[in-house]
Amino acid sequence: MPIRVLGIDGDDTLWHSEGHFHMTEQLFREMVAPWVDADAASEALLDTERSNLGIFGYGAKGFTLSMIETALQVSNHEIDGHSIERILGFGKALLDHPVELLDGVADVLATLSTRYRLVLVTKGDLFHQESKVAASGVAEIFERIEIVAEKDVATYGRIVREMAVEPDAFCMIGNSVRSDIAPVLDLGGAGVHVPYHVTWAVEYAEVDEAHPRLARVRTIDEAPRAVDLLSEAA
Amino acid sequence: MPIRVLGIDGDDTLWHSEGHFHMTEQLFREMVAPWVDADAASEALLDTERSNLGIFGYGAKGFTLSMIETALQVSNHEIDGHSIERILGFGKALLDHPVELLDGVADVLATLSTRYRLVLVTKGDLFHQESKVAASGVAEIFERIEIVAEKDVATYGRIVREMAVEPDAFCMIGNSVRSDIAPVLDLGGAGVHVPYHVTWAVEYAEVDEAHPRLARVRTIDEAPRAVDLLSEAA
Repeated sequence: MPIRVLGIDGDDTLWHSEGHFHMTEQLFREMVAPWVDADAASEALLDTERSNLGIFGYGAKGFTLSMIETALQVSNHEIDGHSIERILGFGKALLDHPVELLDGVADVLATLSTRYRLVLVTKGDLFHQESKVAASGVAEIFERIEIVAEKDVATYGRIVREMAVEPDAFCMIGNSVRSDIAPVLDLGGAGVHVPYHVTWAVEYAEVDEAHPRLARVRTIDEAPRAVDLLSEAA
Repeated sequence: MPIRVLGIDGDDTLWHSEGHFHMTEQLFREMVAPWVDADAASEALLDTERSNLGIFGYGAKGFTLSMIETALQVSNHEIDGHSIERILGFGKALLDHPVELLDGVADVLATLSTRYRLVLVTKGDLFHQESKVAASGVAEIFERIEIVAEKDVATYGRIVREMAVEPDAFCMIGNSVRSDIAPVLDLGGAGVHVPYHVTWAVEYAEVDEAHPRLARVRTIDEAPRAVDLLSEAA
């Protein structure tokens, strides 16, 4: 079955995101340096994030709450109110950061839209994601915008039904093997992996490199050709 | 045009929500009592929430961040780390609270579903709302679930298009005049207002009491009859 519908991830595929979280984490490490070294700070933060994921979900608000929780924990509650307020400021800066498209994104979307029906599939805080989609300037090119709480097989199954195609006519382009690629391959679709220079540890995952419906490209410019090849091979 | 599609609000219409926020606010007022009296604490919290709404959106995670910000502010950053940690705990308890349906909800939904197509329209943290919808036990009765960042005319316009009806064939049932009723009347739809015993100050709004497509009922049991009357009058 040729590919008819293309799902495209937002954060770190169309626009920069994880880089901002990463820089925020550097500020956090410096702040708690009186109590723990940088690696221990990152490790403690990641532990907190993981243990809060089931209650906070993804996104900058939960990340900010986890930074505060970790700062209290590693400092034995000694960290002062001004520092907590600075962490709140880090969170607001993350939420308020201008949306910067990755190089070539606008042209790639224009090319893809002539050949495929496009759906944006992004996860995180609903309000923040809606703001980013609106500010991206590329929302209009998508037939549908899907902001979801979790990118799993069930979610992609629902999206494919909403777009009224079979799973094998669906292909997802994204930077996260765990969220964008593996569940779509499991569903029977295709995937084009475009790595980003930083990956959040929670998003690490393995995938069968030899999967016949998986392509890996270096930058999003190479995605249209990869999708065409996957479509022709199907 | 008779009513064909019925939108139904989640928080404080199908299940309890604002009561939990209200109780949390009581705990917050007690915590900051060494610095400000209860009314001033609530006022400061509401000011913080309002000023953060454009960056946090609605929901328990933003509310928790606003409680921390307000506690730091009213205490001149004197509040200790253990108290900040307690506020994080208040937020987690809000997010983790079991879903309790309001009296009669299951029967009312069963009745309504025999006469109208149902769509659940709820706002707040995506992940939290999805958890609540799943835990409510009533998700299956809805043709569609819409978790939205803002309930305004544009949002209801999109939902009505997704449900493939004209606005005048749509009626919304909910407890918030500002979010559930006024924008739907503006769109050309109908509304059934079912008040909840507490209303968040941000949700206060006025509506034309004499609007021909507005009904007010005391409890959700009275909603099916009110919708039928609005449908027949149209």
